[in-house]
Amino acid sequence: MTITETNPALRNGVDTSTLFATLDAVKQAPAAAQFQFRAHNEWMNGTHSRSTISDFFGVGEERQHERTFVFGADHPAVLVGHDNGPTPVEFVLHALAACLTAGLANIAAARKVTLTEVRSTVSGDIDLNGILGLDPEVRNGYQQIDVRFKVKGNASPEVLRELVEQSRARSAVYDIISNRVPVSIEVDAA
Amino acid sequence: MTITETNPALRNGVDTSTLFATLDAVKQAPAAAQFQFRAHNEWMNGTHSRSTISDFFGVGEERQHERTFVFGADHPAVLVGHDNGPTPVEFVLHALAACLTAGLANIAAARKVTLTEVRSTVSGDIDLNGILGLDPEVRNGYQQIDVRFKVKGNASPEVLRELVEQSRARSAVYDIISNRVPVSIEVDAA
Repeated sequence: MTITETNPALRNGVDTSTLFATLDAVKQAPAAAQFQFRAHNEWMNGTHSRSTISDFFGVGEERQHERTFVFGADHPAVLVGHDNGPTPVEFVLHALAACLTAGLANIAAARKVTLTEVRSTVSGDIDLNGILGLDPEVRNGYQQIDVRFKVKGNASPEVLRELVEQSRARSAVYDIISNRVPVSIEVDAA
Repeated sequence: MTITETNPALRNGVDTSTLFATLDAVKQAPAAAQFQFRAHNEWMNGTHSRSTISDFFGVGEERQHERTFVFGADHPAVLVGHDNGPTPVEFVLHALAACLTAGLANIAAARKVTLTEVRSTVSGDIDLNGILGLDPEVRNGYQQIDVRFKVKGNASPEVLRELVEQSRARSAVYDIISNRVPVSIEVDAA
């Protein structure tokens, strides 16, 4: 983190001058903030499928990630799969950890706090009697998700905790999981 | 899919005899269905973090995936990141596609339908005025998620659509996204 001492605009690896310029630009043109993200999935075999993530829409135009990302998902043997990737529900936990952590780094940088370590473990409890259709009282998804953060930086524990709280309050994935998102499904079958 | 003709228990790559045996085992011992999944995340720099997925609890004991899976997440340059991985919200779309697809393959196999192709595109619309804190009326997460499936197999379009509907009705990730999951956050700060 030596670079933060020579370039105060680059703290926690966040270019705060660009961050603030982006905020100003969106204030002037709120429509620039309309994004659409996408995943393209292909079934491989059994519970194994693979998603390609590359194209998205944002700031008024179609865009591409710098690389095409491909991820497999599967069930482990104990859930009648072949463990070719994590389970879909584990990707949800990764998404939550990554979203809260990215927000934390941005918010800390904006408030001139230098972070030296951020680790988290996200765990989700699920009763498979739900998805197995064995107990109509049991929901299909996680019953509870717990996030445990370890955060170090040049601010008091109170301030560091407040930064995490602000990240939670502005997290897209936290909102998706803890509130309802409408999902539509269309099927072209042949 | 030639193998499905020689071994009727293995349809769509799903070992249905093991699938039904697992269902019977859980019926006899419902506590076996209590699982806990986990992701361990480490902040790298800026909006870039990395999750490790390997340990989980299920069927009464601590378990490990056959391999340790590591995934990065980041923001693209247009969102003041370095595109070292998909955004956290894109992983949510992958999780949804993979969950619905795995369920579809299982349910089709259980109903003796052989699938030949399953593709899907999941898209999520998000207005970043929410997470940027610029409009208190705008939510942080997706406002809408749309799933478009293309499904081919040896059943009528009506039956194939009904299989997708049954997968939706039993999908963990669909439930997580379209209903509320309680999330707790604990911070060890220093």
